[in-house]
Amino acid sequence: MLVIGDEILSGRTKDKNIGFLADYLTDLGIDLEEVRIVGDRKAQIVGAVKALSGEYDLVFTSGGIGPTHDDITADAVAAAFGVKLIHHPEAVEILRERAAARGWELNEARLRMARTPEGASLIANVVSGAPGFSIGNVHVMAGVPSIMQAMLDALAPSLPSGVKMMSETVEAHRGEGEIADWLTELQAAHPEVRMGSYPYHDGKRYTTRIVLRSRKKEALKKALCDVESRLQSG
Amino acid sequence: MLVIGDEILSGRTKDKNIGFLADYLTDLGIDLEEVRIVGDRKAQIVGAVKALSGEYDLVFTSGGIGPTHDDITADAVAAAFGVKLIHHPEAVEILRERAAARGWELNEARLRMARTPEGASLIANVVSGAPGFSIGNVHVMAGVPSIMQAMLDALAPSLPSGVKMMSETVEAHRGEGEIADWLTELQAAHPEVRMGSYPYHDGKRYTTRIVLRSRKKEALKKALCDVESRLQSG
Repeated sequence: MLVIGDEILSGRTKDKNIGFLADYLTDLGIDLEEVRIVGDRKAQIVGAVKALSGEYDLVFTSGGIGPTHDDITADAVAAAFGVKLIHHPEAVEILRERAAARGWELNEARLRMARTPEGASLIANVVSGAPGFSIGNVHVMAGVPSIMQAMLDALAPSLPSGVKMMSETVEAHRGEGEIADWLTELQAAHPEVRMGSYPYHDGKRYTTRIVLRSRKKEALKKALCDVESRLQSG
Repeated sequence: MLVIGDEILSGRTKDKNIGFLADYLTDLGIDLEEVRIVGDRKAQIVGAVKALSGEYDLVFTSGGIGPTHDDITADAVAAAFGVKLIHHPEAVEILRERAAARGWELNEARLRMARTPEGASLIANVVSGAPGFSIGNVHVMAGVPSIMQAMLDALAPSLPSGVKMMSETVEAHRGEGEIADWLTELQAAHPEVRMGSYPYHDGKRYTTRIVLRSRKKEALKKALCDVESRLQSG
């Protein structure tokens, strides 16, 4: 995932899209491998798009596709793919209809939102009209969370969906330092299950949640059984 | 900034450290330029540490310095700097005293938290004892937000602090599409000020906040004056 926007890096806006996309992809059985956040600077966006689209099967971006001068994601993605930036005819039509229905002028700023790299396909936006787009393995979405989420719903049916990842959570009722030694042993004994331990303060003391994740139901069940019996034995 | 942890990428834990560090650095007058989130995989962490420490003046990491097998940040940072991983004598002493005071056994898992690259200096942790560390331009902190924040407070006095960035926020009371054209012109006329526009829904309609940021007080004042008079003129 690539998050684009000076407002995230300055702290002015707190990102909500990373956590949402992470959950969404987990439900689809797609592993999120890396996230980058960059500012509204073309060279930085181009570099990140190239690096991520070369490294991973799928790239999702959020931010930088609005009507203002600092919305340069479409420019940067076109540059990253070495293609021209055009006004996408279907996108222009969508904006024209929306503007007409609301009595808005379809000014140059609003028309910016129809710009896509040549060859891109559109991602529908049922919230506010102006679409996102896909080119190659890169899917470009808005930064406003409600719009990003609507675009993701529009995009999801066309994504290659793997087997769903299953998870089990166990409350350890003790600190991470007390369970770490044997959890390391159990992890080695269950290579098909990923074991994570997450310390937190429950208001009274530090305790730990153990999360087991696997795509294989039987493997997950066996690992869960081993963790629970280890916890019960002291 | 480099955030390390499978639990963030899976969506299980929602990151709170990025927004906090972003605000904190802004207050110090340090620009946050890029954030990456990677999983608990050594090669991925080593690659990100090398890339970020080569590209930027300062790197802050959060996550992966606890007692369990998947806490491999110290290993990865040592590998990135090409130095040995050691048990830092002062860190061992801190953990020993804390364990003694609480009647804990200083087991192998707890001792993992004293591991640092050779040559690292410690970052104090007033919350739970186990320290972070600094090596070169990389500052390694815990992922638990309260501990990360305490480590940041311990670290801050030694950071090179620039001039504070100043900002002004103006409520536009209209949609982004209506202001984008003239805001682009004003941005060109005020090169020392960064102008951003942030659309949001106020519960009744879509409106926009304009944020002006600059290190120069007079430049910021002039830009603010121009934006406000443009808003008042229609």
